Amino acid sequence: MDKAKVIRDPVHKDIFLSELEMRLVDTPEFQRLRRIKQLGVTNLVYPSANHTRFEHSIGAAHIAGRIIGRFDVGDAGEALRAAALLHDIGHGPLSHTSEELLKRHLDRSHEDATLSVIRESGIRDILSEYSVDPDVVLAILSKEHMLSGLISGEVDVDRMDYLARDAYHTGVAYGVIDMDRLVNTVELVDGDIVISQGGLRAVEGLLVARFLMTPTVYLHHTSRIADAMFLRATERAVEEGLLRLEDLMRMDDFDIQAMFRAAGGYVRHMGRRLEDRRLFKTAWFADETCGDEGLRESFYALMEDLGRWARLEVELAEDCGLEEGFVIVDITPRSRYEESNALIWDGEAARPVSMVSPIVRILQDTEASKWSVGVYAPQEHLERVRGICGNIKGYL
Amino acid sequence: MDKAKVIRDPVHKDIFLSELEMRLVDTPEFQRLRRIKQLGVTNLVYPSANHTRFEHSIGAAHIAGRIIGRFDVGDAGEALRAAALLHDIGHGPLSHTSEELLKRHLDRSHEDATLSVIRESGIRDILSEYSVDPDVVLAILSKEHMLSGLISGEVDVDRMDYLARDAYHTGVAYGVIDMDRLVNTVELVDGDIVISQGGLRAVEGLLVARFLMTPTVYLHHTSRIADAMFLRATERAVEEGLLRLEDLMRMDDFDIQAMFRAAGGYVRHMGRRLEDRRLFKTAWFADETCGDEGLRESFYALMEDLGRWARLEVELAEDCGLEEGFVIVDITPRSRYEESNALIWDGEAARPVSMVSPIVRILQDTEASKWSVGVYAPQEHLERVRGICGNIKGYL
Amino acid sequence: MDKAKVIRDPVHKDIFLSELEMRLVDTPEFQRLRRIKQLGVTNLVYPSANHTRFEHSIGAAHIAGRIIGRFDVGDAGEALRAAALLHDIGHGPLSHTSEELLKRHLDRSHEDATLSVIRESGIRDILSEYSVDPDVVLAILSKEHMLSGLISGEVDVDRMDYLARDAYHTGVAYGVIDMDRLVNTVELVDGDIVISQGGLRAVEGLLVARFLMTPTVYLHHTSRIADAMFLRATERAVEEGLLRLEDLMRMDDFDIQAMFRAAGGYVRHMGRRLEDRRLFKTAWFADETCGDEGLRESFYALMEDLGRWARLEVELAEDCGLEEGFVIVDITPRSRYEESNALIWDGEAARPVSMVSPIVRILQDTEASKWSVGVYAPQEHLERVRGICGNIKGYL
Amino acid sequence: MDKAKVIRDPVHKDIFLSELEMRLVDTPEFQRLRRIKQLGVTNLVYPSANHTRFEHSIGAAHIAGRIIGRFDVGDAGEALRAAALLHDIGHGPLSHTSEELLKRHLDRSHEDATLSVIRESGIRDILSEYSVDPDVVLAILSKEHMLSGLISGEVDVDRMDYLARDAYHTGVAYGVIDMDRLVNTVELVDGDIVISQGGLRAVEGLLVARFLMTPTVYLHHTSRIADAMFLRATERAVEEGLLRLEDLMRMDDFDIQAMFRAAGGYVRHMGRRLEDRRLFKTAWFADETCGDEGLRESFYALMEDLGRWARLEVELAEDCGLEEGFVIVDITPRSRYEESNALIWDGEAARPVSMVSPIVRILQDTEASKWSVGVYAPQEHLERVRGICGNIKGYL
Repeated sequence: MDKAKVIRDPVHKDIFLSELEMRLVDTPEFQRLRRIKQLGVTNLVYPSANHTRFEHSIGAAHIAGRIIGRFDVGDAGEALRAAALLHDIGHGPLSHTSEELLKRHLDRSHEDATLSVIRESGIRDILSEYSVDPDVVLAILSKEHMLSGLISGEVDVDRMDYLARDAYHTGVAYGVIDMDRLVNTVELVDGDIVISQGGLRAVEGLLVARFLMTPTVYLHHTSRIADAMFLRATERAVEEGLLRLEDLMRMDDFDIQAMFRAAGGYVRHMGRRLEDRRLFKTAWFADETCGDEGLRESFYALMEDLGRWARLEVELAEDCGLEEGFVIVDITPRSRYEESNALIWDGEAARPVSMVSPIVRILQDTEASKWSVGVYAPQEHLERVRGICGNIKGYL
Repeated sequence: MDKAKVIRDPVHKDIFLSELEMRLVDTPEFQRLRRIKQLGVTNLVYPSANHTRFEHSIGAAHIAGRIIGRFDVGDAGEALRAAALLHDIGHGPLSHTSEELLKRHLDRSHEDATLSVIRESGIRDILSEYSVDPDVVLAILSKEHMLSGLISGEVDVDRMDYLARDAYHTGVAYGVIDMDRLVNTVELVDGDIVISQGGLRAVEGLLVARFLMTPTVYLHHTSRIADAMFLRATERAVEEGLLRLEDLMRMDDFDIQAMFRAAGGYVRHMGRRLEDRRLFKTAWFADETCGDEGLRESFYALMEDLGRWARLEVELAEDCGLEEGFVIVDITPRSRYEESNALIWDGEAARPVSMVSPIVRILQDTEASKWSVGVYAPQEHLERVRGICGNIKGYL
Repeated sequence: MDKAKVIRDPVHKDIFLSELEMRLVDTPEFQRLRRIKQLGVTNLVYPSANHTRFEHSIGAAHIAGRIIGRFDVGDAGEALRAAALLHDIGHGPLSHTSEELLKRHLDRSHEDATLSVIRESGIRDILSEYSVDPDVVLAILSKEHMLSGLISGEVDVDRMDYLARDAYHTGVAYGVIDMDRLVNTVELVDGDIVISQGGLRAVEGLLVARFLMTPTVYLHHTSRIADAMFLRATERAVEEGLLRLEDLMRMDDFDIQAMFRAAGGYVRHMGRRLEDRRLFKTAWFADETCGDEGLRESFYALMEDLGRWARLEVELAEDCGLEEGFVIVDITPRSRYEESNALIWDGEAARPVSMVSPIVRILQDTEASKWSVGVYAPQEHLERVRGICGNIKGYL
Repeated sequence: MDKAKVIRDPVHKDIFLSELEMRLVDTPEFQRLRRIKQLGVTNLVYPSANHTRFEHSIGAAHIAGRIIGRFDVGDAGEALRAAALLHDIGHGPLSHTSEELLKRHLDRSHEDATLSVIRESGIRDILSEYSVDPDVVLAILSKEHMLSGLISGEVDVDRMDYLARDAYHTGVAYGVIDMDRLVNTVELVDGDIVISQGGLRAVEGLLVARFLMTPTVYLHHTSRIADAMFLRATERAVEEGLLRLEDLMRMDDFDIQAMFRAAGGYVRHMGRRLEDRRLFKTAWFADETCGDEGLRESFYALMEDLGRWARLEVELAEDCGLEEGFVIVDITPRSRYEESNALIWDGEAARPVSMVSPIVRILQDTEASKWSVGVYAPQEHLERVRGICGNIKGYL
């Protein structure tokens, strides 16, 4: 690889980018990622979590390069690094919130948006100019290429980078992963991406890291509240015509902030609450420790019926004498713990890590059994909402 | 100290805040600091440098608490921590740029702004409510208190925190300081803040760190260019009435961005350039290695006469056939290397570290001899500007 | 606390010791710990694992001081720090091996040895001289004091220090623990040592760290082999009168090495093998994955009958045509996972962490189900021993 | 490179060794390095400084491999890595002390010893077996090869590894170097080893690190005392026929310890003092701050005349009524600051870093001006020795 430029990264230290990669980084589409926080509103809980999709994308490309440098994949190497670099280029601002909005209202994922951006921008031509076939990059990002799993799979460069980076910037101790060992034990066997036996412990460490980071960071209860407030306010902005979801993939955190500040009513109110960190509080909460499987099923059914979910919130608000939007019902999405399907290669056969490792099996089961629902409301109305929620089953 | 809340910080790990401190943190004035990047545009060079004045302020309060916990200062301890927490509360967005603008056009410092914010906001009352005299806090921040030097002095908590934090978030190796040793060797002797003999090496380390961080981060040539572009664009925005400097201390990075995006002409153009990282390039450069002291003196004279400086830029631009604002003359401000006055206490007498340590004396001399001037212009006009600058002396 | 001296430690940075503590550290009994590697022969696997009981003991005292500094325990604070400092003072060289030898042949633990050393050396007087009651220190170390659990309990300063330190010196990523959070959430409630709710995640992290460190470091298969070779050679040395087990608690790594080098025959041979790292290899291996519970029970029965165990090895060796000592049967001792009994305090009641945390319950169960047996022999005889072991059940 | 084995190192994480390298590591000559502490008696000051020449040698080979992997040097790559691995294989125990003894009494360096060991052991054949010419390895280690400078030069892999490793194990903050940047900016230009412009700051950082590590660790006054005691005791042991200097390159720390313990009289006494850390104290001290250049010259003259130096110590001891060996005159050897000759390549010409960098020039000058002399004696005789030394000039 020609090494056109070096970028200093606190997680990986020196990262070398080729001339092609620098050209991609210098597009307005990629520069936009500088203005999208990796963890959205998490900085309201971990004040240093201000890192962005920009450095994460460069980090992912770096890890991809380290892995691919160990194989002979011919021209695919450059395409793979480019795919890693571009994997979040269609990501909207607001982190999870934008994903949720796209899914709910447009039935699109940010991966779809990424493909669109690549297809429709100058990125296509830049790739071609450097003899990298854009269709190979698109295939990798569409999970249709032999190497797709390195970008988005069980143990992929996206996850390796974000776990290490999120731990670094939050200061949480649990995201420490053995990057070196992971990078050095990924193998290509008969076209499958596997981890050799010597990397088993590192894979276990990665899965444990994700297991511990999930409640500590990704699903931290205060983050959930802020996220839920953000989501409701943004949905309202969409309804009021302040925001077109189709534009999300080209917007950044500044656009959203400007939209909130320019709005009136509920949207403005929620924007100010988030700026001043005057968050809603938890009025009611249930999770797997309550042992009520019927309750879980009711809420999972609700997740499939957005209309009914919205009406529930309205009813609860009305019965508390509150305006719409001041009672939020937040259902944590089903956990997918796909990493446990990562293949471990013992020199003869490849088996899922969940078969090889008892601890992974346990993490998988524990993850699968987790669910939680919270009802949030402003501090000053908490008691009232709490009272009404005593009979929440009656509303389901 | 009552420990009302713990905040996780990647530099210091667990930071405990008292109830009073949480009340201060929860004011809109303090929450604003979340939206002000510590290093302004430096993230265009070090992509992870997205940390903010918010976590820096909390970190400074933490260090202050560690130091003060070793002395018996009575009630002053709480006031000192509060002062450390609030020391940047009047800081405007844009980092150095806002300081420069205040100085040039209003002859104010961000320290003045900090005092105003405390005096005029609810912060005063919150302090009183917790029996901390606001006037003591103001005195500490005005350098009129015996302990002022801990907040802003030769070796102060501001510097300890920002060196460590800037190194952490840029990934640069040179900011590593021996925080433990510094905190443990600060002493109060006859009302003077001194460092005991055992901390000499740690002070040397701190000064070396700052010495190496300065060209690597704080005065990185690309940062200088971006800073200079920002400054010119903002000055133009002030001229065009888009921005009132008096408001700067209550604005954040989002306000500035919104202002740039809403503007037209030059301001808008420069805003887009900064967003897309299409920076000016260096057409001409001179520093202490050229040996021309007359040149240095000419530029230092120019720094004292803003009108003549502006005219110089206009003349250069005109002679290159460029519009005003497309040739920028950037003069690095005189270095102040005050840390070399830190007092080292050998058990009998306190002497400036520059007297005790040869390396510090050298760093001081080297710093003092440094100066540099750059002339920046768009890539596409670089050759023309370069030609004109061959005769830059003729313009001075 | 008076802070008489500061010691620089790579794990905890500055550690302050009082005058009393320095007096204890300066005794020949404590200085001996400099010459006892913390992890015995583990440096044959992790070359940097050369840290000693000396710095570990100082680290444990430091953590004890941090915790106790948060409570009001009156005079007990100094006794507790002294106990933490002295907790390994009777530890023999060879790490696990010496513990195993004491247990097998003298039915003593190294804790007993620690009590003897304190009672019989000048340490008693030094404690008294500084008004610390030696009997309180002895009570703490005998688990007869309210605070004993901090030194040796579910989540104790011994474990906190060694996990962090072993990870630091091996370079293994998994020992990272959230020391700050642990130290800050230990509480004394009604005389019980508990961890408050805010520390639950940190306790889980500690237990996961130990879970991952165990196979990676503590029971690494190559370490087990080296340990087993060491144990057999030392037992032979005892039989031959080259070593008195009663003296072990006053010996160091140099004494053992000198004994090996001065010996002849088997002991000398094994000593050289260990020096040159010509280790035995695994001829046969079984663990919980084989599903044969009868096998496990047979070996556990063998562990209780040292004579029969020794005869088994002799028989296996004879049938392979090898001399005694060249076939070693190594049975991993039953795991004790006592940390899962650590109490979590939710403000109202204290419950074992295994009840509160699903992941801990799983780790506990997994640990409990683990067992393993290896048969080791020299490389050159491996095939022969492998053949005989095909029928190992016949020997049990 | 075939990657036969991975070794976990706390400084570099995963280090891969080839089959040849593993064969070299597995020789008794190389395994001996496990038993030689990198920093000799420094662990009496920094308790965790127990790292050995073994892991340092492997680390140096690793850095060499990283650098050489960036060039096309044909077969020389393997020879260079082998040379880096073997560069300390003739190093005696006791660190500096053994070097000093070899120089004084045999006029040999440990580099000479390294060449002997390679020539006379099985290592020669192992190299040949893997088609690496032993004479090329010997040439590299004799500074007669184009690449010799990478192993022992201005900015070499030896120094890069030991600075980082010594900082890691002492816990001192100042040894932090930007390994990545150094490795990535070493270039081969016309057969010269140079550092490209982008690495200038990293070289400055390395030199500053060494500058700060020198007084803090390498010449720490307590280390100097312990070193001096060790040296005198060992010289006496040589005189008494307890030790043959010719054997030093095959001995380890255990041999020395055993020799001390088996000895009688002065040698035994000093051995016990070192074990129990009952060190001599400083009775008299002078360094460059005293401004007496005549004094410096007198001592430097003494360094050239070992006989006179020994007689001085005897005279001082006699006049204090002490036995020979209880007054030690310790002269710090002249500093060599060769790193300042490292070449910086600006794309057109290579110039010494001391010409390019003001800070390096200053460090060089400061280093050059440093000198110090200490007179050490047992605590109990300190006053008497102090009195006599008042007139030390009369003895010179």
